[in-house]
Amino acid sequence: MAALGGHPYSPSDLELPGFVPQQLSPLQLVVPLIGTSLLVIAVIWLVSGHVLNTGRSARLSKADRLIMCWWAITGLTNLIIEASFLFTPNYLTKESPSFLDEIWKEYSKADSRYAIRDTRIVAIKVIAVFLRGPASLLAIYAIASRKSYSYILQFSVCMGHICAMLVYYITAYLDGMNFCVSPFYFWTYFVGANSPWFVIPTLIAIRSWKLISQSFHSSKVNQD
Amino acid sequence: MAALGGHPYSPSDLELPGFVPQQLSPLQLVVPLIGTSLLVIAVIWLVSGHVLNTGRSARLSKADRLIMCWWAITGLTNLIIEASFLFTPNYLTKESPSFLDEIWKEYSKADSRYAIRDTRIVAIKVIAVFLRGPASLLAIYAIASRKSYSYILQFSVCMGHICAMLVYYITAYLDGMNFCVSPFYFWTYFVGANSPWFVIPTLIAIRSWKLISQSFHSSKVNQD
Repeated sequence: MAALGGHPYSPSDLELPGFVPQQLSPLQLVVPLIGTSLLVIAVIWLVSGHVLNTGRSARLSKADRLIMCWWAITGLTNLIIEASFLFTPNYLTKESPSFLDEIWKEYSKADSRYAIRDTRIVAIKVIAVFLRGPASLLAIYAIASRKSYSYILQFSVCMGHICAMLVYYITAYLDGMNFCVSPFYFWTYFVGANSPWFVIPTLIAIRSWKLISQSFHSSKVNQD
Repeated sequence: MAALGGHPYSPSDLELPGFVPQQLSPLQLVVPLIGTSLLVIAVIWLVSGHVLNTGRSARLSKADRLIMCWWAITGLTNLIIEASFLFTPNYLTKESPSFLDEIWKEYSKADSRYAIRDTRIVAIKVIAVFLRGPASLLAIYAIASRKSYSYILQFSVCMGHICAMLVYYITAYLDGMNFCVSPFYFWTYFVGANSPWFVIPTLIAIRSWKLISQSFHSSKVNQD
């Protein structure tokens, strides 16, 4: 990784005074992250299968339980990892960086707009932390308690994700796509790590759309 | 209006070479715009009340008809006015500016990020022109033909509007809010002219949310 400007980010003439080099390796960051995610998925899967389905007439389907796992992962990502970026404007210059600061130092190699706190990025994070995060956790509760607003809530959070992804990628394209240190980082982080937040919300949104249309088809609610 | 940089926009040190001064007055722009909008509303209201409700068992409610007027206004705004901004990058320097170019010259006084084609703005317009515009017109058809996807479609376009407004205002705030020539333009254009696209989508989204929840409550669709 080149360090012309005293930092590993692209473009190398970016001015980031006081930059403290990353101490953890990509592997030391990714392994705990994936490990924690798998743990969260396991807990939600077991709780939803055993505790929530015991003595209930309407059992949660496997699809519902898998989707609850997704809402836990994405909600916690918003409320812990993305919140850390939002509330730690000095994450590049901290003398004793936390694990989360190191995550963002690593990710910034794929998109240096994070390093310079481009307001396009910060605006997306504000919406993620204050709206989508809490709404994702509410979605777990809504599915678990079979709320009638469950699908429309999930649909709206998915729309928020898709919207954020569109703004993220369209602005990156319009701004010239020169924020990434290498094709490897481009494909693994900028495209790869973000792709679940495009693919899975799209799938859940399509499912919600279908179930909602189906519900109208069968109920013919009288509006007004 | 100060013209230090050869243009009326704020900040005045903005470089806009080749700027051709606006020829139409605000009144000459706003009156035709409001007139056309009222005409569109009248046409949709009459057609939805007479043609579409004739010989049908399920009549369109007044709320549905009003909302159809909204979708026509917002869809045509996306597909004509906003498309004009998107596809006319040289609107400030055209020797013979069109009416729509003049509209954007006028609006840029309230937000000079339009004048410099800030990618935050262009990204929002890409989504407006290619996704929300067509979807808004589809919503008119969906309401008129009582499609079962009508409410979820309307809800998703409203979410898109609210999302775009959030990105628009949050980035403006984070970028320092110094794009507007005067408090008058701030309140009439930046806040006032945009406010319907925040208030009305919020109201339609709430209505759709309620009707969808109500539909699930009464139909108890079996998912999967």
